[in-house]
Amino acid sequence: MLPYNLLLAKVEEAISQLDFNLAPHELYDPISYTLALGGKRVRPVFTLLACDMMGGKIEEALQPAIACEIFHNFTLLHDDIMDNAPIRRGKETVFRKWNSNIAILSGDAMFATAYRLLSGIEPDLLPSILTIFSNTAIQVCEGQQYDMNFELVNTVSIPDYLNMIRLKTAVLPAACLQIGAMIAKAKMPDVEYIYQFGEKIGLAFQLMDDLLDVFGQEAKFGKQCGGDIIANKKTYLYLKAYELADIENKRKLDLLFSDIHIPDDEKIAGVKKIYETLEVANHVHRVMDELYINALQNLDRISVPEGRKSELLKFAKKLLSRES
Amino acid sequence: MLPYNLLLAKVEEAISQLDFNLAPHELYDPISYTLALGGKRVRPVFTLLACDMMGGKIEEALQPAIACEIFHNFTLLHDDIMDNAPIRRGKETVFRKWNSNIAILSGDAMFATAYRLLSGIEPDLLPSILTIFSNTAIQVCEGQQYDMNFELVNTVSIPDYLNMIRLKTAVLPAACLQIGAMIAKAKMPDVEYIYQFGEKIGLAFQLMDDLLDVFGQEAKFGKQCGGDIIANKKTYLYLKAYELADIENKRKLDLLFSDIHIPDDEKIAGVKKIYETLEVANHVHRVMDELYINALQNLDRISVPEGRKSELLKFAKKLLSRES
Repeated sequence: MLPYNLLLAKVEEAISQLDFNLAPHELYDPISYTLALGGKRVRPVFTLLACDMMGGKIEEALQPAIACEIFHNFTLLHDDIMDNAPIRRGKETVFRKWNSNIAILSGDAMFATAYRLLSGIEPDLLPSILTIFSNTAIQVCEGQQYDMNFELVNTVSIPDYLNMIRLKTAVLPAACLQIGAMIAKAKMPDVEYIYQFGEKIGLAFQLMDDLLDVFGQEAKFGKQCGGDIIANKKTYLYLKAYELADIENKRKLDLLFSDIHIPDDEKIAGVKKIYETLEVANHVHRVMDELYINALQNLDRISVPEGRKSELLKFAKKLLSRES
Repeated sequence: MLPYNLLLAKVEEAISQLDFNLAPHELYDPISYTLALGGKRVRPVFTLLACDMMGGKIEEALQPAIACEIFHNFTLLHDDIMDNAPIRRGKETVFRKWNSNIAILSGDAMFATAYRLLSGIEPDLLPSILTIFSNTAIQVCEGQQYDMNFELVNTVSIPDYLNMIRLKTAVLPAACLQIGAMIAKAKMPDVEYIYQFGEKIGLAFQLMDDLLDVFGQEAKFGKQCGGDIIANKKTYLYLKAYELADIENKRKLDLLFSDIHIPDDEKIAGVKKIYETLEVANHVHRVMDELYINALQNLDRISVPEGRKSELLKFAKKLLSRES
């Protein structure tokens, strides 16, 4: 099995070879900027890991892997406009550095570029992979819409929240694994198992992201800390806290999430204190553990020798430890 | 040959059968709203006309034709945000009726839906059609970016302007024809001739659109009249007028396009008067005629009996007479 670090290097190399030094530069500069910001390249590495694990040729999965990464970055450009996010990966977001129109249009061009990269997939596989890629893209849009909806309502159930993050963040890594497996000619039910593995890892990863948004270190995290709290995002932490809170803490949470005159730092500190009192982080870790076990069960079911699964498992573990 | 009205009816039927009654409705309602606004359905009818003309089965071109229409409507959603356009096809634009975030996200979902509709194309043709569709989408983004750039600069050359409208509005109808021809298994150079035919008709159509924006009737046109003038768009009319104007009229044009205190109606009337004095409309008609002749030359070159070309020709003529 190829070590994931090698696959990551192949992804970085392929991205660096993309040429966006094109006219009009107003359209292409933000694309180069975004792709150069880095990130963990989780999705394309997943595609290559799945392809390699299933015995395929990673060269055949490389362009589709890059398509997955470009698609993901496109969603970030548009999400950052909608979420009014100032910072991404430690740098100014595209709509802040340029403007919203540029971020919309460069995003659209990235979306089309992602699809163009799929066209090299062998014709027999292309229809089904095109369908999966498109359905996944639509699900990601649905997830983003639910996310925006949830900011405007008072109550969100925990299952609704989990479905939202499934759509917004977990189906894409799942589909990236599935596409890699399909390129390696893996068959059902293995492609379904690897999808499920990815979805569960994706969900766990998002819960960890929610946790780090409150308890992480800003420098390491690369995003503004407490951003979810400022944006009144009803994350798993908030929803669980609200479920566990007594009347007094519920009242405090309501106040912190509704009084627009409370300064951001006070709001973050107040919410954080309640989360700590209620030990919400422990609850999040418990759900993450369950998801991780479910992911492992799906990995177990895949009909390739255990030894072939080690790199994917290592990579997923590393992701969830957030050492990277 | 199937009459274009029948093909239009098939397009309308297929669009009406699309089901966007899905959750979250905030994402899907604007899609239903947009597709129900109508429009001339030029692009999907082009796809079907090209397929039929080249001897293909129009059933095989129907879903790709709808993909072209949905793609076109997606670009309108995003363009209307960027252009701050209040009205489209006589109704409120999506970003005005809902908001910008909804228009961004519903547009993205439409883009993905368009690609999903391509997945039914037979595997042998899919890679090349996917490439054409994606390259066209990227060109449309480039055109929109040039259009926005041109609003911010003082001088635009007429060739640069023509290249901008080629990208923004002519390559898509051209690609729609090409895709229809390819589905009918037409070969080079016929697919190139039909592309060129579409590009020239598309350019002529856009010049007519520029003309109608100034001299059209608002009710018939379905858009705010004089919108290009208010937005300081350097259309062919403006550029030609500036080329032909004496010092006095140049000064007036400069003033009208730079003084933000002139009320919109005065600005429109002032610019219109200069266009009339310089008989700019005649110049536009001349260029349109040249493009039309070029289009016909390309249609002539296509190696199918002349009789098979009549419906496409009739449809293009009708478009350029804007009786529809």
